[in-house]
Amino acid sequence: MHVPLTVSDFLYRAERVFADTTAVVDEPNQPAPPVPATTYAGFGDRVRAWQAGFDALGLGEGERVAVVSHNSARLLELLHAVPGTGRICVPVNFRLRPEEIAYIVEHSGASTLLVDPELDLGDVTAPHRFTLGEETEALMRFDTEPRPWREPDEDATATINYTSGTTARPKGVRMTHRNIWLNAVTFALHARAWERDVYLHVLPMFHCNGWGMPFGLAGLGVPQVVLRKVDGAEILTRVRDHGVTLVCGAPAVWNAVLDAARSWDGEIPGRDRVRVICAGAPPPSRTIARVGEELGWEFLQLYGLTETSPMLTFNRTRPGDDGLAPEERARKLSRAGAPAVGVRLRISGTGEVMARSNVVMDGYWEDPGATAEALEDGWFHTGDGGSLDDEGHLTISDRKKDVIITGGENVSSIEVEDALFSHPAVAEAAVIGVPHDRWGETIKALVVPADGAEVTEAELIAHCKARLAGYKAPTSVEFRDAIPRTATGKVQKFKLRQPYWAGLERGVN
Amino acid sequence: MHVPLTVSDFLYRAERVFADTTAVVDEPNQPAPPVPATTYAGFGDRVRAWQAGFDALGLGEGERVAVVSHNSARLLELLHAVPGTGRICVPVNFRLRPEEIAYIVEHSGASTLLVDPELDLGDVTAPHRFTLGEETEALMRFDTEPRPWREPDEDATATINYTSGTTARPKGVRMTHRNIWLNAVTFALHARAWERDVYLHVLPMFHCNGWGMPFGLAGLGVPQVVLRKVDGAEILTRVRDHGVTLVCGAPAVWNAVLDAARSWDGEIPGRDRVRVICAGAPPPSRTIARVGEELGWEFLQLYGLTETSPMLTFNRTRPGDDGLAPEERARKLSRAGAPAVGVRLRISGTGEVMARSNVVMDGYWEDPGATAEALEDGWFHTGDGGSLDDEGHLTISDRKKDVIITGGENVSSIEVEDALFSHPAVAEAAVIGVPHDRWGETIKALVVPADGAEVTEAELIAHCKARLAGYKAPTSVEFRDAIPRTATGKVQKFKLRQPYWAGLERGVN
Repeated sequence: MHVPLTVSDFLYRAERVFADTTAVVDEPNQPAPPVPATTYAGFGDRVRAWQAGFDALGLGEGERVAVVSHNSARLLELLHAVPGTGRICVPVNFRLRPEEIAYIVEHSGASTLLVDPELDLGDVTAPHRFTLGEETEALMRFDTEPRPWREPDEDATATINYTSGTTARPKGVRMTHRNIWLNAVTFALHARAWERDVYLHVLPMFHCNGWGMPFGLAGLGVPQVVLRKVDGAEILTRVRDHGVTLVCGAPAVWNAVLDAARSWDGEIPGRDRVRVICAGAPPPSRTIARVGEELGWEFLQLYGLTETSPMLTFNRTRPGDDGLAPEERARKLSRAGAPAVGVRLRISGTGEVMARSNVVMDGYWEDPGATAEALEDGWFHTGDGGSLDDEGHLTISDRKKDVIITGGENVSSIEVEDALFSHPAVAEAAVIGVPHDRWGETIKALVVPADGAEVTEAELIAHCKARLAGYKAPTSVEFRDAIPRTATGKVQKFKLRQPYWAGLERGVN
Repeated sequence: MHVPLTVSDFLYRAERVFADTTAVVDEPNQPAPPVPATTYAGFGDRVRAWQAGFDALGLGEGERVAVVSHNSARLLELLHAVPGTGRICVPVNFRLRPEEIAYIVEHSGASTLLVDPELDLGDVTAPHRFTLGEETEALMRFDTEPRPWREPDEDATATINYTSGTTARPKGVRMTHRNIWLNAVTFALHARAWERDVYLHVLPMFHCNGWGMPFGLAGLGVPQVVLRKVDGAEILTRVRDHGVTLVCGAPAVWNAVLDAARSWDGEIPGRDRVRVICAGAPPPSRTIARVGEELGWEFLQLYGLTETSPMLTFNRTRPGDDGLAPEERARKLSRAGAPAVGVRLRISGTGEVMARSNVVMDGYWEDPGATAEALEDGWFHTGDGGSLDDEGHLTISDRKKDVIITGGENVSSIEVEDALFSHPAVAEAAVIGVPHDRWGETIKALVVPADGAEVTEAELIAHCKARLAGYKAPTSVEFRDAIPRTATGKVQKFKLRQPYWAGLERGVN
């Protein structure tokens, strides 16, 4: 029997098996009236009320509904409600500038735009525009059943997730129901999620649909606690108050928690209970070791892209590595990980990571050229450079375009960053290639010093030379107050490089 | 990207990520030379050697390879090797009589027959027949790569599993690669299987491909220990010697282990470590409670049929039930469980359990009539009677044909058996309807007394009357030395009923 794999499978199970279980605890501190804590029965009712509201609005199957929102119960509901009746959800990065959001709304052809009340989008418009909160509560119809999706199809587009493009216009990643289903189930499998978990939504839900967690965790009856803004102390508080066991986020999140833990009064909550799943950027091994030592939380890693739903690889300490020294265990955990069930990986002749899997997107929305390029030869071209070791684990050496080539030698900026991080005075570091007359490029480190720490450029260069081949050490260090990141925690190296390459024809030498 | 879901995905991952992990520990006590313990790298080599051997034999894609074997490393290899290159594996119940096996070989059109050396199949024949062991080691080709499956297709048949038909000729259940893949992954998800598990193959692998565990567990790098014959003391020994954490089996298996535990010298191995997954027949709650109390093993339950890959439902103690008294917790665990992710259930007007899911078979091999009947209206008709409670959990009241109707009242034979089991003198019990002039049917209990126990018919009837509505108590009890079961632990009630209904037109009144 061949039944379409659709996102509805998860809520179907939640409503029947976990009707009385808490589904969502909305963020209390937000400009819209928070949704009262609901059970999965109540969550299902609200999802159907959204769907009936869209029916009344006249939205047909395949129509796009764009949502620009911080993490909130309503965004979580919409991730189920919109695709559940064959419509397409477009969750948009709320940190984008109004012009960028306008581009996405127009490019996706969204007929409906739902916006958080705190955001000022100026004159961004769509045929239907609502502010999340009282306006959308009035849109929802609790008194009538929604029209069911006529012919559910696992290959239909469920969501379009615009990537935070680094060089060009953002591209709309088309996720099918099958993409989402298989990512949600295999991610839950590798994370060992179950009904005794409590999940904290730290990761922005607009980012690749919260990595698919909103779906898989509903299917397993896991309560989902919403956090609107990343704040280390607030994460510790929620972990304590809600018995959180599972959190996803970028490395910057764990640094924020580690900082907050230093001034936390009393025992760190969740010791030997919380598992954190890190992705979005390769974490320095020092951060990994500290999560275990200072918080007592288990560190897991995932690697993937918006184009891959996102899970391509997963990393958890292997049974044979239990006896390793903490720093060596942390080093092995800093790898991207092993291919997930159903994912095949290979490294191209040019060192690019290539993936073949049902979690790879169907293509880019209305961009056949970019789609053909990304999926050439039936493999997805990640654009990341990496290698596979004899444990079958992937290590990402760098965004391909960020590899620094100096004097003919390839240098992984991550490796240099890792060396910098091992110095106690370094809070954040980003390493870039800057033009150099003789070597093509030379290595520059941008460093945010730890609070109150005193360190010089010469000390840091010496520190790196003691740990790396000489040519890999930075030739200059600049101290900064902060390093700019995207909403998902990625350092935008091209932006850091820009001032140094101004006036030159290319951004690498 | 749409990649066919095939069984190869599991071994692909095992070979790359768990190359050095023990894959299989073969049964040491068997007539064929055991396969030396292999890693997943070695397991992959042997699987390819089988495939290259089949190539040399001239077997094409879609050809059937029948295997009649006790649990063994070779059978496990064949479950991967045969479908992995687009051929179809037919694992046959080794307890069947030669005539029955001959029927299956002929009906499936198997061109190749592989047989355990201990079995005497008389003149059952096929174009190619090999005895498992030296003959098949000679067939395998380690010096050449197998021909790859030209166009892998997730809807292609991977295995044909003949059901132990109760009334007619066995039917061949066609499992597609998609059926097997989705069952393997969702079963592993609900069982929370991971790389730190060690699995003991107690359940016969011919039975629905060992419930799909050979696939999912390979994908997760789990060592698989083979047990050839069910023996309570031997199970305890293997759990101790191999650090087993996970075992599947029918209720009779756990009774055998509980018996062996009574005379076990020293601490029961695996306390607070082993999870057992029970299916094949609904277990009495007394058995469930004893597994927890006397062994310290966690009891989980699965419900399904060969036609459903098999997992339709899964039962684990819900977080809210931790505080219940042990017998009440056991009672809730005796339910079939909650629908697995991706499974939809409903109860028909006549009380039959109906399922809709990708784990439901594609159909019966060369039997369009039976297929149409089983899948009528797009739902699979399980033939079992059951109900769904307000926790969304399924309870199987009985094989539909085994419901006893006495004086116009429906009686679940399981309920009566459960009452009998709660008497300490009862080791096994089966309850059937026998003809009665006034009430149509009346209830008869067949009971195997516990070793050394003394009990009378009147005592057992009084015991049931104290626990059940009067009409549900047996009106007669017969004591037996044993109750016949199928290889998979099911009591064949129709056989027990036969002598009482001889000469009558129907088997129920």
